[in-house]
Amino acid sequence: MKLQVAIDRVSLEYAAETAAKLDGIVDIVEFGTSLVKDYGLLNMTQTVKSLKHAQALIDIKTIDEGEYEFRKGYESGANILTVMGGSSVDTIKKVSQVAQEAGQEIFIDLMETDNQKMAEIANIPDAIYGIHHSKDNVSGFDAVATVEQFHKDFPDIKRISVAGGINLDTASRLAKQGIVESVIVGGGILKAEDPVKAAKTFMEAIG
Amino acid sequence: MKLQVAIDRVSLEYAAETAAKLDGIVDIVEFGTSLVKDYGLLNMTQTVKSLKHAQALIDIKTIDEGEYEFRKGYESGANILTVMGGSSVDTIKKVSQVAQEAGQEIFIDLMETDNQKMAEIANIPDAIYGIHHSKDNVSGFDAVATVEQFHKDFPDIKRISVAGGINLDTASRLAKQGIVESVIVGGGILKAEDPVKAAKTFMEAIG
Repeated sequence: MKLQVAIDRVSLEYAAETAAKLDGIVDIVEFGTSLVKDYGLLNMTQTVKSLKHAQALIDIKTIDEGEYEFRKGYESGANILTVMGGSSVDTIKKVSQVAQEAGQEIFIDLMETDNQKMAEIANIPDAIYGIHHSKDNVSGFDAVATVEQFHKDFPDIKRISVAGGINLDTASRLAKQGIVESVIVGGGILKAEDPVKAAKTFMEAIG
Repeated sequence: MKLQVAIDRVSLEYAAETAAKLDGIVDIVEFGTSLVKDYGLLNMTQTVKSLKHAQALIDIKTIDEGEYEFRKGYESGANILTVMGGSSVDTIKKVSQVAQEAGQEIFIDLMETDNQKMAEIANIPDAIYGIHHSKDNVSGFDAVATVEQFHKDFPDIKRISVAGGINLDTASRLAKQGIVESVIVGGGILKAEDPVKAAKTFMEAIG
């Protein structure tokens, strides 16, 4: 199981420093939506392209204008870009096509996507399906149980990721469960006193 | 009925020039999602705040982290910010609260929002509900008929807007219909040889 660390709601300068420190430790560095909306892709390109070891995911959260946003996102150095499961099916098909042309990857963020819509988008080639509990949603979230249920509902989907308040214990249990290919951690690492040390602890826990 | 003109998928420099030219002619200048994602809110602030007559809408398309994004968006000079109808209900309630605290407005983008979800978010105080046909959706869209149906389904909603390939004829028919408080035009004005002249023509057609 891979570890994806989300860098979000910080200055671009701090994001660049942190990304450089985590590169070579974690598998995927995520540049969060707040970096895109605060600073813009054009100002993130140098930082994103500076990664030497980790994959770069830009959490662009595309919901429309799929071709435009995905072309810009890959040009900015992303290996993986996110599209909302709540987008039109046409948007998701279009960004999948752009990803294939670019030789890069697509991550479908399933936040607030119901099973009916999910069934319509279950067969996007090579897509990573991201189970995602909204930060704003005040109800609780059991990542391990949700992943198990998703796997039962959609047994043909091979690439699954999960995000939403993941701590060390949950990450460890997800690794043992063996269903998801990656787990996304934000505050659990970025808000630690020493994010690099925290990232190493997570890597050991899931290794 | 008010005219909102969307400036999208252009350079920030061109967006600034165009916004200045349209200020005083149209009612609402929309700074499109591509400007946010390409350049970032921090680099748009000066342009957004330079409007003297028109209201400024930033199409930030919030889907999560509502409080963070809406605070940043209003700090950047927006009078109106957009949130996706497909967000969690908690996100929509949170941004509505931030809007009230800022004394500004909220626009709920209903793209791909089904009637069941719509019913859950139908009572957000003073929100503008935006009927929005996805640019990527390849099926057709009859704006006048869709507005009429929405008004029948949700008769208590007073503030309605509509977007999606609106041309001069459709804008004129929407004005006569008398249901929506604003109509959003993008390419019909921005792709005209003379956008200022086109904007004036639209204002006359709906006046």
